[in-house]
Amino acid sequence: MAETETLSLTQAHDLVVAALVANRTAPDNAACVARALVAAEADGQSGHGLSRVPSYAAQSRSGKVDGFARPALEDVTPALLRVDAGLGFAYPALDLALAVLPAKARALGIAIAAVRRSHHFGQAGAHCERLAEQGLVAFVFGNAPKSIAPWGGRTPLFGTNPIAFAAPVAASVDPGHAPLVIDLAVSRVAKGKIMAAEKAGRTIPEGWALDADGNPTTDASAAMAGTMIPIGEAKGAALAMMVEVMAAALVGASLAFEASSLFSGDGAPPNLGQTIIAIDPGLTSAGAYGERIAALVAAVETEPGARLPGSSRLAARARARAEGVAVPAPILAEIRALAACPNG
Amino acid sequence: MAETETLSLTQAHDLVVAALVANRTAPDNAACVARALVAAEADGQSGHGLSRVPSYAAQSRSGKVDGFARPALEDVTPALLRVDAGLGFAYPALDLALAVLPAKARALGIAIAAVRRSHHFGQAGAHCERLAEQGLVAFVFGNAPKSIAPWGGRTPLFGTNPIAFAAPVAASVDPGHAPLVIDLAVSRVAKGKIMAAEKAGRTIPEGWALDADGNPTTDASAAMAGTMIPIGEAKGAALAMMVEVMAAALVGASLAFEASSLFSGDGAPPNLGQTIIAIDPGLTSAGAYGERIAALVAAVETEPGARLPGSSRLAARARARAEGVAVPAPILAEIRALAACPNG
Repeated sequence: MAETETLSLTQAHDLVVAALVANRTAPDNAACVARALVAAEADGQSGHGLSRVPSYAAQSRSGKVDGFARPALEDVTPALLRVDAGLGFAYPALDLALAVLPAKARALGIAIAAVRRSHHFGQAGAHCERLAEQGLVAFVFGNAPKSIAPWGGRTPLFGTNPIAFAAPVAASVDPGHAPLVIDLAVSRVAKGKIMAAEKAGRTIPEGWALDADGNPTTDASAAMAGTMIPIGEAKGAALAMMVEVMAAALVGASLAFEASSLFSGDGAPPNLGQTIIAIDPGLTSAGAYGERIAALVAAVETEPGARLPGSSRLAARARARAEGVAVPAPILAEIRALAACPNG
Repeated sequence: MAETETLSLTQAHDLVVAALVANRTAPDNAACVARALVAAEADGQSGHGLSRVPSYAAQSRSGKVDGFARPALEDVTPALLRVDAGLGFAYPALDLALAVLPAKARALGIAIAAVRRSHHFGQAGAHCERLAEQGLVAFVFGNAPKSIAPWGGRTPLFGTNPIAFAAPVAASVDPGHAPLVIDLAVSRVAKGKIMAAEKAGRTIPEGWALDADGNPTTDASAAMAGTMIPIGEAKGAALAMMVEVMAAALVGASLAFEASSLFSGDGAPPNLGQTIIAIDPGLTSAGAYGERIAALVAAVETEPGARLPGSSRLAARARARAEGVAVPAPILAEIRALAACPNG
């Protein structure tokens, strides 16, 4: 393990802002991106956290991401928003959608936002969670560059495409209860684990990935050149395709197999897509929702050995708020170097 | 294997109608139920097909299902319907929702139907498919009596709760292409396979289910008293909980662990719930959808060894239309006996 250095969340935020602003990103966009990356780091999702800063900065520096983009919102119907992320970072576009969507969902019971010309959307569940904190049930779908083959095939066509969902937990019954957040990639393990093994020269367990010929492999480099194994075999591959429809086809974005890398500064913009659905559960259930979700959550919380999905994320967040986040020294050194030497 | 007898789809339909009408079900409701069961049988989904007739008839006979129920529709907002299935069969309520939802989705981009006081909703993907045939992207969520434990626990709290999704495939590009339909239970195998093994006195492979103490089992009876293993371990259990929120909490229906059996005529009504979401992809994508979905589907169809999800279902349907369906003789004898002896 690399040595780590512990930063407070404020220190981490300021450092990310400085690194992005020094690399052709507007200060408000940099602050928005920093909030998302630091929140993911605090939640223990380091694959969507500070480790992304060097590749984000490389992309804003090269212009593959437009750090000065202003997302544009189109209010299409009382239940539908379209957002053009302008080939900038995803987070400013998602923030814009999340600011307007709740009022629409509360008025009509359901509303949808379609975000196109977008980028890496990070910790998917965090976007849903913000809607659940406002009393709404939410889905967020976003695609990612190719990693998973259709079942039976060998060519990666789909991203690891998470399914992310959040639901408010009965404020009337338990005012302090955090929303239920479900956020899972449809691959058996996160691709970041294979990337980390490749970087460290380690092997990976069998069952994580296939090589380019479709055979099981424990070689991390062969895995990176091959495909990620989906959960539930054909079922996970089908779920990855479903997310591809929802995130890309539904908004007019690049499909996973067309999207450029989210890690290199070279190439065309990835042009990914995201879809957010928000539902007012009080309206759909004629007021029954609060008691029903409380009964469901209580059944899981009182089951010996079981935990609600997202529990470890919330525990990590509480620790990070109290103690800060421990960042690997090499990543921190890279970010500090980016912040010190403006490139733009 | 039991001997089978082959019926045309019309013969199968008429027989199911007769069995239900003879057991306290209104003729129009019986026809609606028969259409769904015969369609599932034709699609090779026999667990949602004619095998259900004896238990359906037992429930309408006892009054656990009200065979004379008239679903009631409440047009809550321009994007939201609530449907009270009246503790009758699910299919008439779903038909009512599916008749009204498309116009709402086309007007606003998205619309939702919440169905409460409902029953077994059968082949989940078939309901989505009807929306996709009308050019809409659709989700259907429905819960089922308890089978899956929260991850780490031993008590079944969630149903095998399918995720069902359908998307139209570019009528402009390929007018003859069937919609993409994804319909998968979040358990590793269908519960019906374990029920069939128990009935036949066979063991089951390890990996399908756990016994009541949470240990792996190959004993079908022990499995029926225990829990079904979800896909992707904790991930599948989380997806089952997500569907429980969408199908039950969101509409005010029974949770899986509160719902009575769908197989016995005894007890209170199961009072299950369903939610349908319909989206107009032309509106969300500003017209880009057709080309995008065609590119995605073509990439899968041209990948050696891969097939679109739902391919085997479509092949079975084509065979059934040409050749009829082969129904196990014991099931057919039961249905014929029900049709011959009115009870009610």
